[in-house]
Amino acid sequence: MSHPFREAHVLITGGLGFIGSNLAIALVKKGAIVTIVDNLTPNQGGNLFNINPIKKSVTVDHNDIRNVSAMTKLVKGKQYIFHLARQTDHVLSQRDPFLDIDVNIRGTTIILEACKKNNQQVKFIYTGTRGQYGKAVKLPVSEDAPTNPKGIYEITNLAAEKIVRVYHDIHGIRSVMLRLTNIYGPRSQMKHDRFGVVNWFVRLALDGTPISVFGDGQLKRDFLYIDDTIDAMLGVAACNECYGEILNIGKEKPETFLHLAKTIVQLSEQGSYMMTPFTKERAIQEPGHFASDITKIHRLTGWSPTTTLITGLTKTLTYYKKYKKHYW
Amino acid sequence: MSHPFREAHVLITGGLGFIGSNLAIALVKKGAIVTIVDNLTPNQGGNLFNINPIKKSVTVDHNDIRNVSAMTKLVKGKQYIFHLARQTDHVLSQRDPFLDIDVNIRGTTIILEACKKNNQQVKFIYTGTRGQYGKAVKLPVSEDAPTNPKGIYEITNLAAEKIVRVYHDIHGIRSVMLRLTNIYGPRSQMKHDRFGVVNWFVRLALDGTPISVFGDGQLKRDFLYIDDTIDAMLGVAACNECYGEILNIGKEKPETFLHLAKTIVQLSEQGSYMMTPFTKERAIQEPGHFASDITKIHRLTGWSPTTTLITGLTKTLTYYKKYKKHYW
Repeated sequence: MSHPFREAHVLITGGLGFIGSNLAIALVKKGAIVTIVDNLTPNQGGNLFNINPIKKSVTVDHNDIRNVSAMTKLVKGKQYIFHLARQTDHVLSQRDPFLDIDVNIRGTTIILEACKKNNQQVKFIYTGTRGQYGKAVKLPVSEDAPTNPKGIYEITNLAAEKIVRVYHDIHGIRSVMLRLTNIYGPRSQMKHDRFGVVNWFVRLALDGTPISVFGDGQLKRDFLYIDDTIDAMLGVAACNECYGEILNIGKEKPETFLHLAKTIVQLSEQGSYMMTPFTKERAIQEPGHFASDITKIHRLTGWSPTTTLITGLTKTLTYYKKYKKHYW
Repeated sequence: MSHPFREAHVLITGGLGFIGSNLAIALVKKGAIVTIVDNLTPNQGGNLFNINPIKKSVTVDHNDIRNVSAMTKLVKGKQYIFHLARQTDHVLSQRDPFLDIDVNIRGTTIILEACKKNNQQVKFIYTGTRGQYGKAVKLPVSEDAPTNPKGIYEITNLAAEKIVRVYHDIHGIRSVMLRLTNIYGPRSQMKHDRFGVVNWFVRLALDGTPISVFGDGQLKRDFLYIDDTIDAMLGVAACNECYGEILNIGKEKPETFLHLAKTIVQLSEQGSYMMTPFTKERAIQEPGHFASDITKIHRLTGWSPTTTLITGLTKTLTYYKKYKKHYW
């Protein structure tokens, strides 16, 4: 159990994206044999530079996860599948809900069917979103809280999670269902603000563009640094008791958007922020304060986040200053 | 408000099926101008004989709800859309989850998009299932109970319901989201047992085949007669305060499967029943006792069911004895 990933065959869908690439790097360090499947859909976060440190150590496949024959081959012989490929663009999902349905629900089901038919032994790690909860009834939000997602992206993630559970319960595909909060850090896309709000604030600061803080800036979120996220995911994947469970990955103590903006401005030694009213559309979809109850994952794996906002943002700023040309 | 459907243009998807056809007949009686869209997919309940009493008074279109251009035309000018078309076969949905995803989620979204682009004034009545709740935490189950559906059919119905909510909240398509319990009565398909358990018991009795009652027969459900269901749906559609709401349609006092079987055997004056152990697969997916909390729909519309099990079953037996050749 101390080296659960050494020589383990691991498939990461969306492995050229933000979380997937950081996960691939961590797994390679732990001795895993990593295959990435990522079709580099424009604006969805996939970036070959993300895996620059491990590019000679991983296999990269550019098929779409909706390609049944490709996925049939790719799932074979894998001990772990981390499923991160997703249609993630909130603006697009409102304009065209069909791509979310197709990639997030049907795509996930294609991988599960491939496992059912070709790899019943796999351990499947599904990564959903705290957006599946919608408006929090009480804080921090535990895994048995109501799920009233407010957007198509969040709904399709919830539906896919529930389909994962069916494959776990009925078809015996051991699965764990994660719900990730707002994650930030190196390797997130920096081209647009349609997902990854913390990183977008970092970009604005580095560009010297004022950061728009909506409303009075007192809205709270549990911004989580990527390294903490990866530690949690690896801890869960290695934890037999975690399979069959829904687990939050987040922080119990949230911070305000105003504090976030101020901290970024201060650490970047450039940039500024401005208060901006919510647009009507944003106000309707805005689910309010959020913080994750992480009692369950802590009990099962011992994990809790260790990176402060200042440390996480400092590392993030350093990374993007250095590698700006690969992300802007 | 006393004649809300007189000369109203109404579209019923799945209008040749069990609930859809009974609804069409009721609406024609109330003076509505009814269009049915139903592609008569085999084994899904569609049956032209179902609309025999009104066949000269309704327009029937055989397009698939996934046909975007057909739906674009069909939604235009309608005041009400009752959306009943669904992939309903539980056995099929376990073997091939993709048809459920495609018909139930994508199909529903296609209709909503057609409304968004071509008929923002419509009132949209979505019919989900009590299966969206999964195992009841407490009885009777109210609309804010947890939703842990155990099968693909139920998951896709839940996802579609949540997408309907997005179109209501964000795009202004006035919608009501119903969750229907086990409905029985005339016009349900009688060819197989993959949905419509009460009607299947009726068929077995009429065939003189023993009815299999699973386990000890003490499992309880709130079997609801079709006429009560239609009254509820029409009441909701005519109720402005109902739009934006999730509403149960069911009964608060459930009855056991054993009582159901015994009553059918007695009323049919033929048939018999036998106790049968649950199959492993059935046991996993079986969500336990169920009864619907109907406080909310009663408060908003005044509706509550009035048909006793004996009356409902008597009418059902009479119908199928008379029209057996159209259903067997």
